[in-house]
Parts: sequence; structure tokens; C-alpha cells
Amino acid sequence: MLSVWKSKPESGLEVKETEIPKINEDEVLIKVKAASICGTDRHIQKWDEWAANRIGKNIPYIFGHEVSGEIVEMGKNVRGLEIDDHVSAETHISCGYCFQCRTGNEHICENVKILGVDVNGVFAEYVALPYRNAWKNDKSVPHWIASAQEPMGNAVHTVFDGDVAGKTVAVFGMGPIGLCAVGLCKMAGAEKVIAVHPSDFRLKFAKDFGADLSLKSRDADVKKEIMDYTDGKGVDVMLEMSGSPQAFNDGISVLRPGGRASILGVYSKPFEVDVTGIVFKAARVNGINGRRMFDTWYKTKAFLKAGFPLEKIITHNFRLDEIEKGFEVLDAKEAVKVALEP
Amino acid sequence: MLSVWKSKPESGLEVKETEIPKINEDEVLIKVKAASICGTDRHIQKWDEWAANRIGKNIPYIFGHEVSGEIVEMGKNVRGLEIDDHVSAETHISCGYCFQCRTGNEHICENVKILGVDVNGVFAEYVALPYRNAWKNDKSVPHWIASAQEPMGNAVHTVFDGDVAGKTVAVFGMGPIGLCAVGLCKMAGAEKVIAVHPSDFRLKFAKDFGADLSLKSRDADVKKEIMDYTDGKGVDVMLEMSGSPQAFNDGISVLRPGGRASILGVYSKPFEVDVTGIVFKAARVNGINGRRMFDTWYKTKAFLKAGFPLEKIITHNFRLDEIEKGFEVLDAKEAVKVALEP
Amino acid sequence: MLSVWKSKPESGLEVKETEIPKINEDEVLIKVKAASICGTDRHIQKWDEWAANRIGKNIPYIFGHEVSGEIVEMGKNVRGLEIDDHVSAETHISCGYCFQCRTGNEHICENVKILGVDVNGVFAEYVALPYRNAWKNDKSVPHWIASAQEPMGNAVHTVFDGDVAGKTVAVFGMGPIGLCAVGLCKMAGAEKVIAVHPSDFRLKFAKDFGADLSLKSRDADVKKEIMDYTDGKGVDVMLEMSGSPQAFNDGISVLRPGGRASILGVYSKPFEVDVTGIVFKAARVNGINGRRMFDTWYKTKAFLKAGFPLEKIITHNFRLDEIEKGFEVLDAKEAVKVALEP
Amino acid sequence: MLSVWKSKPESGLEVKETEIPKINEDEVLIKVKAASICGTDRHIQKWDEWAANRIGKNIPYIFGHEVSGEIVEMGKNVRGLEIDDHVSAETHISCGYCFQCRTGNEHICENVKILGVDVNGVFAEYVALPYRNAWKNDKSVPHWIASAQEPMGNAVHTVFDGDVAGKTVAVFGMGPIGLCAVGLCKMAGAEKVIAVHPSDFRLKFAKDFGADLSLKSRDADVKKEIMDYTDGKGVDVMLEMSGSPQAFNDGISVLRPGGRASILGVYSKPFEVDVTGIVFKAARVNGINGRRMFDTWYKTKAFLKAGFPLEKIITHNFRLDEIEKGFEVLDAKEAVKVALEP
Repeated sequence: MLSVWKSKPESGLEVKETEIPKINEDEVLIKVKAASICGTDRHIQKWDEWAANRIGKNIPYIFGHEVSGEIVEMGKNVRGLEIDDHVSAETHISCGYCFQCRTGNEHICENVKILGVDVNGVFAEYVALPYRNAWKNDKSVPHWIASAQEPMGNAVHTVFDGDVAGKTVAVFGMGPIGLCAVGLCKMAGAEKVIAVHPSDFRLKFAKDFGADLSLKSRDADVKKEIMDYTDGKGVDVMLEMSGSPQAFNDGISVLRPGGRASILGVYSKPFEVDVTGIVFKAARVNGINGRRMFDTWYKTKAFLKAGFPLEKIITHNFRLDEIEKGFEVLDAKEAVKVALEP
Repeated sequence: MLSVWKSKPESGLEVKETEIPKINEDEVLIKVKAASICGTDRHIQKWDEWAANRIGKNIPYIFGHEVSGEIVEMGKNVRGLEIDDHVSAETHISCGYCFQCRTGNEHICENVKILGVDVNGVFAEYVALPYRNAWKNDKSVPHWIASAQEPMGNAVHTVFDGDVAGKTVAVFGMGPIGLCAVGLCKMAGAEKVIAVHPSDFRLKFAKDFGADLSLKSRDADVKKEIMDYTDGKGVDVMLEMSGSPQAFNDGISVLRPGGRASILGVYSKPFEVDVTGIVFKAARVNGINGRRMFDTWYKTKAFLKAGFPLEKIITHNFRLDEIEKGFEVLDAKEAVKVALEP
Repeated sequence: MLSVWKSKPESGLEVKETEIPKINEDEVLIKVKAASICGTDRHIQKWDEWAANRIGKNIPYIFGHEVSGEIVEMGKNVRGLEIDDHVSAETHISCGYCFQCRTGNEHICENVKILGVDVNGVFAEYVALPYRNAWKNDKSVPHWIASAQEPMGNAVHTVFDGDVAGKTVAVFGMGPIGLCAVGLCKMAGAEKVIAVHPSDFRLKFAKDFGADLSLKSRDADVKKEIMDYTDGKGVDVMLEMSGSPQAFNDGISVLRPGGRASILGVYSKPFEVDVTGIVFKAARVNGINGRRMFDTWYKTKAFLKAGFPLEKIITHNFRLDEIEKGFEVLDAKEAVKVALEP
Repeated sequence: MLSVWKSKPESGLEVKETEIPKINEDEVLIKVKAASICGTDRHIQKWDEWAANRIGKNIPYIFGHEVSGEIVEMGKNVRGLEIDDHVSAETHISCGYCFQCRTGNEHICENVKILGVDVNGVFAEYVALPYRNAWKNDKSVPHWIASAQEPMGNAVHTVFDGDVAGKTVAVFGMGPIGLCAVGLCKMAGAEKVIAVHPSDFRLKFAKDFGADLSLKSRDADVKKEIMDYTDGKGVDVMLEMSGSPQAFNDGISVLRPGGRASILGVYSKPFEVDVTGIVFKAARVNGINGRRMFDTWYKTKAFLKAGFPLEKIITHNFRLDEIEKGFEVLDAKEAVKVALEP
């Protein structure tokens, strides 16, 4: 089968033929119909410091984790699925027996393995997946859209970490997840949604997802503008999806007393935080990791059914063997999300 | 001033001139610009058993409690309000010092007095109100609409007693509150909303508020239809707003395991309930009373700002001295909500 | 092996030799060191209406579900356990792929099978159990005590369905679970715990578990006494563990506005409930089923470690082949919980 | 009356005679029977940077805020209180009409004034207090103990910001509040409580309040010891009450995935935090301010009734005019809490 490998500890990737994977009794074999490129894949492709530390020991291997495909083979222990089912992948492969897994928190399993990071991934014609990680899609959803449910799920998890109905929300970072967050907040009855990002290109998408106010962080005095927009009260909810320390601190600063900050961003290193400010305003600061298994997926599916326009974040479609083009349009900041079809 | 009195312990009402009320240091005097008729007012007008028991000792007095008007006078202790402010009334006048009041639950104050029930109400040109019960409206909202925020608030309280985003919800009873509930659920991202009511007249309104499925309880096998519609799973959330024991039991019966039932309906007497069914499905059954003070009002205001079409429930407008016409159209089941203007 | 069978659709049981069960790849074989008798076992032994309806189709089979033992054999898929581990059994065998199971609510799995009810149980020298249902015990806890963790878990689930620290709690029904509930509330900082039961025999145990007030429901005016004891305020929390409609209604009636009622009791049929009372006092009425998997077990273990005196509910120890004696002392109301050792 | 003044912008205080305060219609006059010294009072006495910035504009004024006394006079609007009632003071004087106050969060009122900081305080023979801030004590509690309910309330608020029953808790900082937190956790059924502090003196008190493990942060490798003690799992709950950046970061670091960190500490300036660590472990980090009004006070009272040994934190009693001695024993680190009696 065609497959995309991270073969060497340096920038680049390798497209080549390899054998179709064998599945074990608890796995399904998925014929990949679409895969999409995540920021993580870009770290792996470029082989930055994070990639070297996190997956140096795994190469050579097949990367990629956002996927939609069809089940073509099933191990004998598989339950609740059938051949030909359309499925996406929950990418956190949990152990099932640690404290977290046994208390409804598989998404923060102590022994987690990540698809396309710790085990062979989805940039290939076929992928083997534990059946518990297969999420059945409605066949009416095209594969190239269904593949993006995984990052949409991050947005669902973050937005619904608390209540947004009737609330003001500031979202920092208009990556694919931030854009989904804007759209979800609006669809869930948020009173006002403020989108913050350095570039006009992404803010145009935010507007299209319903943002009431767009702030270009490169130019605007973000804190002042948000305080003015909220009549000096601050926002009820702050979602940090940029990974920028500045955004984190601005976000905490514009949060109203008693507000909620849900943080999905990952920061390259520790940075200065005004913890006393968090204390005095009695803020709740919640770390968000992955997707709740599988509450988040049910909610994601429900929003898709109710008309969430996930296709809007997918700006480019390529064939899998053109994957390098995908990385190029992302590097050129011309794309939001790239879908690949084998 | 013109005013509407419940004067005698029998069916009927009396429209007459009386003195403008005097306010105390903690009160505001409101010039009533619009008042609307609630089901409670109909009990009082008809003088049924509930009315006789509940307010026999209060007559003669001025009834009515849904209102919007302008502040024309303020006691010296009043804070946070100004002359000419447009205001509605939170109708639960709480004591401020009981356990409930001191723990964020004023809406279930142990010493509550209700406007237009225990003290003189709003079917008049002026009404005196404790300033803590005055809720400031945006001047852009017409008074005849703003007056209906009080019942809309009951719907907000009931709907947001839990999460509805991405969920299926069945609402029983398409009175003004039930209709608002349908509209709020849709606006807050519910996946599917099912409206149940005995008559086509009200179900047409439900459709207009976005109900995905309308069931005429007089004819339909409600339980079967809801189970079918949800693929045998049942609904995530059940809102009982009809006061019908049949609706309560149907609602519990179609609730999925682990689901939420929020009950605003008031039932004329105890009735048989399958408590074991509640236990086995681990349902949460929550009684709902009034509006949370003032979380509910903030949320109500936010939804109005975000475009909630409250005007749709107001089918008739009359002058205050035509109030009997209001009761007539309601008795004839031609109206949903009647607004009165002095 | 020695085993206890429900062989015929009539009162009685059969003690006989049978083959040691074979395990599948996902199961462990447990050498039973102690089993205890639950109220459910008594229904089965007596073959009442419930038993006939629920398990008529299953006989002949081995019953019993409260257990502690040692793992003597493991299927090849078993993870997180080892030979010789001491284990108890979570008795709800869930499917793992229904909506409930996939959203952290396995305890209300739509396809649940119950140990000793739907599949062969623990009144035997050996039992086969899915490894996910095996709960590892500290070896320092004697088996005859560890076996009673399952009902203690019901109490843990019910008590910690909400907060009890600094609260007043009324517990109705001093069966083994109700007694554990009293002890847990005290250990978790409840201000006052009120125990209600018809007989002095059980109330003496309640006292021993720390009940501040014991009410003999056969004689006392339970509602009046509780209202007096709480200075007219009512209790913050009501736990119904008796299955008596009278207790349910008394409990709702003495609940303070905004209070919590957690209901574990199972009632033989529907009965009259004052739902309006629940609505006006904005009570939360929560059905409780089984134990949360496995949050409840972790908490149960923690309380045992911290010194919860579970042994106090076990009044009698017999050999497994003396099981009929166990039913006799229970029928004679001389026992609270009976432990059996093969 | 005798009174203690901060008269000049420099270290020191002034004990002098002054007039008994006049009360307004909403206030009560309290005859102070006991007052106690808080860390805040020490900042004021020493006149450090915080004090200069926060209260430079208020001097000269009477400081002190922890109090117990008797009502000797009441304004005409006062409700729910009587002459001779024993009362303590909630020290956050809220406006009653801001968003926070109207949504059950008076403790983070936008217009808050603090007793003894923004208005004249309790280091005096009499103090005037808004009646809504007066908390009625049981007369059985001695004044010198009742005065310390205010800091105990901080501990109650922090501990019960979430669940502790059956959990492991690490408390950083054994000031009076941290010590109360240790005792409360134990009384509320925490499985294990770990106390961390730099000095042996305070750790001895922690032990007396029931700490299962005491770590002297000056010497011990706190992170390693806590991870070892919890078998590598980390603690379920972390309470930061020291105001030390090191303690905050150690605490986050030993928190298990999905754990709760409740932060009461106030830090002199921003410091480096590993936010990514918070994100990956999906921690909840909650700022805690003051006491919930008045949920926290009810809970505090309930724990006192149930036997919480608050007197243990009060190591020294002096006459009010000996207040300088109080500061001396605190500076010498010989005291935990000092009570003063006029």
C-alpha cells in the first residue's frame, strides 16, 4: 500500500509502498478514504525539538492521525461495529486499566499511546486500529469532512468544558480548532464571541464562523478592546488555543471575576503568570487534553447533524502522494486545514 | 390611577380608580407601560380552589405580576437604578436573611412574598416594588415584549438547569413557557427538540420556534413516537411544563438512562409515579421554581440581545381597561400571551 | 466444586457438586474465599414475583454475587491483574460499547448482565468473571469483610452523589447499605445524621455507626421529629434505602428547599407522590443504581483504608454448605449481613 | 473607647481613646469581645509595599477584621438579628447590586470594601458593621475562638471548593488557614493528608490536626516524597496556602492527572509556571477569594458544632492594649494565631 513515513531524524518525509498492516483480535482494519494534516504532523515533518524528543525513538514509522475510512476487516473480539462502517479514529489509545481509565477519564490515561505518534498512523491506504478507538460516522458525511472531526472534537471538549449559552466568550488562536470553537459557541447560544489572531487571513474565517468581534493581535490593544467591548466587565469565558504566553496572559487579564479559562494551547516552555490575579478574581483555569471518550464524540456528531459547517475549515484537498504540497500551502499560510485522499 | 382588583371571593374582577401607591425607602415607583396575563392570574380571576386557599386572606387587592415600565420615583436607599430606567419585576420578593437567601437561593426564600399574589401587583398604572426586585431592561426592547421576560425566565431557568447543547430534548406543554423553552433549546444548540401538546394551535407555534418534531398528545402514542424518533434510546433531557400527570409519567418513561428531567409543572394533587423506574435509570429529577436571582435574568437578557423572538408568544394586545377581553381570548384558546397597556 | 443452585421455579435452593467453570480469554477464575448474602438472594431463594419475572428463564443456575477471593487462572487478554491477587466483583457486567458505557456510565449499561442473576454467581468454590469486573483488594482486608464492599459501594455511591460535609442527612432504611450510609456520612463530616427504621434491632447498629438521632418509624411521628430536630428547617440531604413508599414520601417532605434526595430503594409498584411539593421546594431527586465504575470502588477502598468499620454489618459467619442457616437468621431478623466461606 | 490606629505611613501602630462609632440604619454596633491578628494586619503594622499601595489613602484609621462580639445597638432596617446576639463579621462588605452580587458571588463583588482595610476595623472596643455582614454565633462558643472563624472560613472555602472524601490531599503552608485545612480534610473523610511547611514548629500543629505525612520543605525533596507516598500517582487535591511560587509549582507538579488545585495563596509578583503541564494533566486550577456568602459560614458553623478544634490554632491571648506583644510573638515565630480581648 501507499504510505508516508518519517524515516530519518531530520526534516522531510518519505512516500513509499509498504505492506498492509495485520490486525489483532481487538483491532479493525480501516481502508483510509481521507486523512488530514494536523499541526503535530508539521512538527514531525520539520523534525523540531519537540519531535526529536517525543518520537526520536519511534522512527521509522508511518505518521498522521486525523482520518475517515471504511472497515474492511475485524478481529474476533470486535463488538458494535460492522464491515463497511464508516469510521474516524479517536487518537488516544488508552490502556483501560489505569486509575484514569477506570474513572471515566480515558482521555488522560497514564499509559496512553497516540496514533501516528507512538504507533503507525493514517497517512497510508490502510491503518490498524483498536476497535474501541473506532468512531462510527454517518455515511452521509463525506470522508474528507469526517476526518476533521478529531480537531473539531478538541474544540467541542474545550467549549463545553463549561456553559457558554448566554455568555461572552473570547477565543485566542484561529487555527482549525479555534475556528471550530467560534462556530460552536455561536451555535450554542453564546451572546458574543470575540476572535483573536495575529493575521487577517484567519480572522476572515472567524467572521464567517460568526465571530461578533475580530481582533488582530499583531496590531490591536487586545486587552483594552475586549474590556471596552464588554463595557468594562470582561468576558465570562476565555478559550486559549494559540499556545502563546501573551495570549494566555491577555486572556486571564480580560476574564471577569468568577470566569472560566479553558486552556488547550501548548506552550514551548514555562512563562510568567500573574497567579495572584487568578486568585483574586477567583478564576477557574482548566487544562484541556484530547477529547472525552466518548462524550465529546457524541456531542461532535450531534453538532454535525445539526448543521455545523465543518467543511469551512478545509481549504485544500490533495491526493495522499501529494502530501508535500499540503505542507507547502500550510507553510505559506495559505491554508487552514488540508485533506488528503489516497 | 386605573387599577384592576380582585375584590370578592368569587369569579370576576373589578376595574377602578385608586390612589397611586406610596413607596418606602427601599422601593421604586414604576409607571406601568405594559403588563401581561399569566396562568396564575386566570386562577385568581376565576377564583378556583387554589386561589381561594392561597389568597383568600389577601382580597381586596390589585393582582398581576408580569410587567415592564419606567421608574418615576425612588426611595433613598435605592442603588444601581435611576429615574426613567426601564424595568421589569422579579416577582419573588425575598426576605434576604433566611438560609436560602444567604446561600444564593433567594428564589426559594422561606419567607417569600409574591407580587400580585401576596402584595399589590401590576395591573395598574403604577406599582411600588422593592428596588432589589427591579430588573433594568434595555430601552430598545418594547415594553409589551419586555413584560414577558418573567415567564421567559421560567423557561431559561428550566432549560439551563443542565446542559442542552448537542442533546435531544422533549418539552411537554406548549404554554408560553414551553414555547420559549423550545426556542431556547434550539438557540442553545440542542440536536433535536420534541414538542408535546394536546392541540394543533399551540403546536403550530412550537414549529415556529423550531421544534423538530411535534406530537399532539390527544391523538399520538407519545411514548412510542419519541422512542422511535430517538432510535430507541430515549431523550437526554425532559422538560415538564404542562402540569399533567400523564405528561410527567410519559416524560420519565422516554428519558434515557442517566437523563435529566426538569419539572416546572404544578399538579393539582399527588399522583402515581413509577419511582423504581427513576431509580433503575438513574434519572435526575429536578424541581424548578421561579427564576434564579439574578443569574436567570442575565441569561434571559443575553438571549434577547442575541435575537430570541419573544414577541412571538404575544398574540394579543389590549388596553388595561379591556383586561376582560384578554381573559376571554385566553379562555377561548385563541391566545398564547396577552399584553395589556394602561 | 461445591455450589449453590437455584434449580426450580419455587422456594428453596440446592447445594451440590458441579464442575469448576472454564474461563474465556477476557476472564479470570476466582477461588471464592468468602461470599455474602444480599436481599436479592433472598428474593431468589424465596422465588417471589420479582424473581419469577426477572430470572425465570435463567434457572437452573448458580446464584450469589457478593464475593471476595483469589485469582487462580487468567485469560490471555487480562491486564492489570496477577495470579494470587485478592479480588472482589463489580457485579454489573457491562457491554462496553453502548452509549452509557462510552460516556462514563457503565453502571447503567443498556445491555448489562448481573452476576448471580443473569450469569452464574459466587455461591460456589470458584467463579469465572470478566477481568474488567475484578476489583483488586488490599491483602490486609479479610475476605469475609472484603466481600461486603459491593453493598458498601451502593452506600458510597448514594452518599457521595452529592456533598454531605457540614450537612444534615436523614437515612431511611437500616439494611446493610443504610447502616454503611450512616457511618460514611459521619466519617465524611456530616453535621447530623438521622437514622429511620421500623425496628430497634437495626437502630442499635445505626447508633453504633454514629447516628445522632434514631427514629423508630413504627412508633414515631417521623416527619414531626425530623422537623423539630432541625429547628423547622428540614434536612439538607435525604437518602432513601428502604424501598418503602411511606419512607420516600416522608423523606421528600422533610427535605429543606433546595435539598438533595438520593434514592436507592426499589419499590414493588408505582405509588402516589406529591410532585408539586418537589417542584415548589426545588428539590433534586436522583435515582441511584449500582456503583459508578470504578470511581465508587476507589472511594470505597479509600474509606476502608481510612478505617471504615465494615465488619460491623457482618453479624454471622457460616460455611457455604450451611447457607440455609444464613437465610434463616435473616428471616428471623437476627442478622444484618451473613458471610459464607466455602 | 480604646482603639488601635494605623496613623502614619510607617511601621508601627497607635493605641488611643476615640469616640464610639455611630451606626446608620443598615448597621449594627458590636461590642468587641475578642479580635484576632491576621497576616494582613502584620503587613499593615509593618507598612510594607503592599500596605503602602493598598491603604496609603485610608490612614489614619482603625485596623483589624477578625472579631467576635455582642450586638448592642441596631439600625432600623436591621432584620434577622437581635440585641445581645453574639456575632462575627464577614469582612467583605459587598455592594449588593453588581453582577457578582446578583449572581450568588458577593465574595468577589466588584465594589467590595474590606473591614479594617477600607473602613474602620475591629481592633477597638466597638465596631459598626452592615447588618448583612454580621454572622450570628452560637453563644456556647467563646468569643476568642469565634473570632477565628473568619480565617477558618477561608480554609472551609478552599477545602470544599471540591470533594475531599476518600481523596489524597496535599496542603502547602501551615499558617492558621493551612492548619484548619488539614483538620477539615481529615474530618471530611480524606484518605490521606500531607502537610508541607518550612518549619518544624508549624508541622507539629499539622500533626495535631491529623496530617498523615508532614514534610519540612526547607529540607525535604517535597516532590519526590509526595510521589513516593502516593505510589507514583500524585495527589487528588492540592491546596496552596503559602503564597510561595515554589510551593505552587511543586503542588502542580505532584497533582495527579485530572486533579484539583485550589489556590488561596497570594504571591508578591508574577512567576514562571509550567502551563503546559497543567494542560497535559487536565488539571483544574481554581483561584479562591474570601468566603462564599454565606454558604461558607454555614459550613464553618456546622464543623464547629461537630467538634472542629478551632481553639488549637490560637496559641496566645492578650489584652487589646497589649497588641504589640501579639505582633512580637508572631514575628518571633512563636505563635500561630493571637487573640486579643478589649
